[in-house]
Amino acid sequence: MKTVKDYIRTIADFPHEGILFRDVTTLFADPRGFRMAVDQMLHPWAGAQIDKIVGLEARGFILGGAIAHQLSKGFVPIRKKGKLPGQTISQAYKLEYGEAIMEMHEDAIQPGEKVLIVDDLLATGGTCGAGIKLIERLGGEIVGCSFIVDLPELGGRKLLAEMGVPVSVLCEFEGL
Amino acid sequence: MKTVKDYIRTIADFPHEGILFRDVTTLFADPRGFRMAVDQMLHPWAGAQIDKIVGLEARGFILGGAIAHQLSKGFVPIRKKGKLPGQTISQAYKLEYGEAIMEMHEDAIQPGEKVLIVDDLLATGGTCGAGIKLIERLGGEIVGCSFIVDLPELGGRKLLAEMGVPVSVLCEFEGL
Repeated sequence: MKTVKDYIRTIADFPHEGILFRDVTTLFADPRGFRMAVDQMLHPWAGAQIDKIVGLEARGFILGGAIAHQLSKGFVPIRKKGKLPGQTISQAYKLEYGEAIMEMHEDAIQPGEKVLIVDDLLATGGTCGAGIKLIERLGGEIVGCSFIVDLPELGGRKLLAEMGVPVSVLCEFEGL
Repeated sequence: MKTVKDYIRTIADFPHEGILFRDVTTLFADPRGFRMAVDQMLHPWAGAQIDKIVGLEARGFILGGAIAHQLSKGFVPIRKKGKLPGQTISQAYKLEYGEAIMEMHEDAIQPGEKVLIVDDLLATGGTCGAGIKLIERLGGEIVGCSFIVDLPELGGRKLLAEMGVPVSVLCEFEGL
């Protein structure tokens, strides 16, 4: 039987020349692939208390919606600047050139709530690191972060470990 | 017990002055609200053959992920121009000023596949209409479109009916 990794397609030179883009849309489009990915993303946290699922824009929304529904929990989006309509808190993080800003509604997490963060891919960990800071600023406690793909050469897993957050990934790809 | 509509928050002057924005993030963040919304979006199509769930960027991804997982079906995103890494087909649609372009991977739907489209809100129907055209150009058959909110004054429901597509909504809001 195919593994989750087998369903992921690699596309060269997207979004920039020289990049090997790991495309999970072929995984999501396959009924067995999508179900396996969602189920396996939850296995490490079985039995843990989780109050809210946070998904990172935009592919993390697909996984976060599925996981929140599976657990009958609420879903909270972390979005790029300017997309959320209510009162937000924001957090900048470094890109290769310059910086980007992620936002969360300031009433989306209550102090003491246990939060699982989900996204498709862990690269430098910049986006997820910003998400962790946003959640912790609101008093939330991070249960862990669950990804499908890790790109170990980019060091995201090490960064999140240094922040004290448990991380789960389903597969790794070498080469950028 | 609160209804789905009761969980939706209205925010004035977002994204532009004079607009009443119907914010579903408060619905999604509540475990009962999110579960009710996903379950009720599926009720009209119970027993129907559905092969793939298509979600419209970006809030449709949250709902589409949940619904695809619930049904053990594949999920396919329709995104704004330039976001999908593989070979795409694209479809323009009119905005109040100018136009926008939605894209889908050209291999995301196989001819004859039965497709349910999901999104949070039906306004003019422009985005969803473009989505219908993309799916039909690939030979997919639209089972229906499922939304949480309809803004009847904007005429989207009439537009989709004229395209011959069944539409389900969970609630309506008057006033723009």
